[in-house]
Amino acid sequence: MKAEIITIGDEILIGQIVDSNSAFLGKQLNKIGIDVFQITSVQDDEKHIINALKDASKRADLVITTGGLGPTKDDLTKKTLCSYFSDELVLDQQVLEHIEEIFRKYVSTPILPANKTQAYLPSKSTGLFNRYGTAPGMWIEQDQTVYISLPGVPYEMKSLMRDEVIPRLKERFKTPYIIHKTILTYGLGESAIADRIEEWEDALPQHIKLAYLPNFGRVRLRLTTRGVNEDKLYAELNEQINKLHTYIGDIIKGFEDEESLEENIARLFVENGLSLSTAESCTGGKIASKFSDIPGASGFLKGGIVSYATSAKSDALGISDDIIETHSVVSKVITSEMANKSLQMFNSDLAIATTGNAGPTKGDSDAAIGTVFIALADGKETKVHQFNFGNQRERVTNKAVNKSFELIYDWIIKQNKQQN
Amino acid sequence: MKAEIITIGDEILIGQIVDSNSAFLGKQLNKIGIDVFQITSVQDDEKHIINALKDASKRADLVITTGGLGPTKDDLTKKTLCSYFSDELVLDQQVLEHIEEIFRKYVSTPILPANKTQAYLPSKSTGLFNRYGTAPGMWIEQDQTVYISLPGVPYEMKSLMRDEVIPRLKERFKTPYIIHKTILTYGLGESAIADRIEEWEDALPQHIKLAYLPNFGRVRLRLTTRGVNEDKLYAELNEQINKLHTYIGDIIKGFEDEESLEENIARLFVENGLSLSTAESCTGGKIASKFSDIPGASGFLKGGIVSYATSAKSDALGISDDIIETHSVVSKVITSEMANKSLQMFNSDLAIATTGNAGPTKGDSDAAIGTVFIALADGKETKVHQFNFGNQRERVTNKAVNKSFELIYDWIIKQNKQQN
Repeated sequence: MKAEIITIGDEILIGQIVDSNSAFLGKQLNKIGIDVFQITSVQDDEKHIINALKDASKRADLVITTGGLGPTKDDLTKKTLCSYFSDELVLDQQVLEHIEEIFRKYVSTPILPANKTQAYLPSKSTGLFNRYGTAPGMWIEQDQTVYISLPGVPYEMKSLMRDEVIPRLKERFKTPYIIHKTILTYGLGESAIADRIEEWEDALPQHIKLAYLPNFGRVRLRLTTRGVNEDKLYAELNEQINKLHTYIGDIIKGFEDEESLEENIARLFVENGLSLSTAESCTGGKIASKFSDIPGASGFLKGGIVSYATSAKSDALGISDDIIETHSVVSKVITSEMANKSLQMFNSDLAIATTGNAGPTKGDSDAAIGTVFIALADGKETKVHQFNFGNQRERVTNKAVNKSFELIYDWIIKQNKQQN
Repeated sequence: MKAEIITIGDEILIGQIVDSNSAFLGKQLNKIGIDVFQITSVQDDEKHIINALKDASKRADLVITTGGLGPTKDDLTKKTLCSYFSDELVLDQQVLEHIEEIFRKYVSTPILPANKTQAYLPSKSTGLFNRYGTAPGMWIEQDQTVYISLPGVPYEMKSLMRDEVIPRLKERFKTPYIIHKTILTYGLGESAIADRIEEWEDALPQHIKLAYLPNFGRVRLRLTTRGVNEDKLYAELNEQINKLHTYIGDIIKGFEDEESLEENIARLFVENGLSLSTAESCTGGKIASKFSDIPGASGFLKGGIVSYATSAKSDALGISDDIIETHSVVSKVITSEMANKSLQMFNSDLAIATTGNAGPTKGDSDAAIGTVFIALADGKETKVHQFNFGNQRERVTNKAVNKSFELIYDWIIKQNKQQN
């Protein structure tokens, strides 16, 4: 069972937007045992879209398109589907009523003829209800291939996939299980890991695939297997992972299939009734904002300080100018002070603080570009770690964020063990 | 002159990573007059990669691949290029020395045979120096088509494009100018805009293309034209934009080609010697962290408070529990207080504060899901705006961030006018 994704829109090809829809679709399809064979991004051009549909239909049983369903003249998907399927557009009264309702409730401007054209669908298609928007999805079958067309707006596409597409696909196709296990490691590069696990990797059964995914100081190892017996597949993967532990148990920080490391941390804080606060300089609020993306974050995340400018460290955190002067703003002492102040200010169980020099210029600090300090304070002790994350701004910041998650994870795992 | 991008890696197809490389490549190529016709993402599979190369070479003069150049066994790109070009790998001594240097300087583990394999390149290729990593890029020409292979690690790929690929492409090809102008609007939906500018849109010359790009409360209008006379193209676009102003001048908030709205705001703050601080609840640090991504942000961004939990509003911002109790944590009064406190704490010229209920549950607040308050305080006055951004967490948060940027922009434009 193979699927292909076609994303439609000039804005993707000229790089004005990053196509994040495909990753979401790939993940969702995988979960129900459907492999994505290829992703193709094409222009807002009827001929190009038709060629992509033709090519994809030769290779895949399922073709999903996103984009080109808006009310404006550059939106060509429905017209193109009519050409491709020799079909015509007909009014769907239910969709029209939904569009009218959205305008009544949320839009201050009057409904226009262009908006009403969104209620017209190819006669051969089944409309898929879009609760968050005016463009319905479409499902069309022809010659054993299922074609699904979804809007490009991410939250509309996502809810359509979850509520309309996935249940229908599960009913329509009997698919094998595709199981991924993603092992998160910190501390070694991919080639050093490959070297340590070579014996294990070479002995992996043919049908289990291994991939290395390095990312700013983390390396993920992804194992993939497929088959009809779910229990057997899990048992086999778990056996391999147990073996893997004997090679690299020291650098494994858990798994990232059901939840990310951040979600894992969030859950452990909530389960242990503990709370977190931040004091971010070089990471500029990224640690707090990544946690706040998790629904229910207010259950453990008290808040944080972004003390970006040097003056903010004295003005907002109350660190004395003398200490800043003596130690420089990127230093062990200041980072430690920031963590302590954040712990007090937010009355949290753990505070994490970051300072660093991400470049491109040295700014107010004496520290070399790439230097990052991360401090953790929990009332009992305040530990500061020093790193050099290289000479590229984006890399320095992202490595600092990832390393902070690792240190928070180590801390909460320790608390969790002590409490249980 | 057409290009195609092929991104290689199972992790893209199963949705484990979002392919952001293609957007960067598209943007860079466009700037030097090269159109990206199609983007194709394929598996770590030799046959699949070869098919993609063959298909792309039929349509394009330039084929760029990313990914599959790592030192581990799942990295197949070089082997595949050798099959495709009937070539073999030979040692590049300079690359080997660079790899050895990187290990000496930045890697704590010893260099391994697998790392040294990265110094082998197809004999028909020209190596492209990768200053940030161990995998060099490659340039191969065959039958009038240029093939470029780049690593998938974003910061390595980016520096290779800027330093090695773009200068060589400019020398190798004579290309037309492709000019985009992107007009940023706030306040109307895409169909309402289309209705107001219909007369103008219908009168656009055939060779100027218009696209509507809606995104969380903002709509961008992108005009694209191409030709050999750069001055003429700009003059023509500017004339159209002047005409456009007579239709929707009231909702235009500037242009986003050279710099984003955030960068525009940053520049205006720095030019006017003004500073900004934040107090973020529902946006969780996103406003601060987006500004801190801009190099030189410390020139205007003092810092901010993320007061995520209700207790943080009293503990860290010093807002009295009575006021919170009386008005509820998502309210006009609390948001106004947050902005005022942030202004004092950070000693800034403008403070922006957000509170809101992004859902999925109501949490500590009385406000309906989707309710967002945004306050701006500048010492002279504190203004609070109320919005309802719908019923979907991601949308509510993103709309709140975008709206905040709009309000900050309006404020700084006003200051800028008063000072100049």
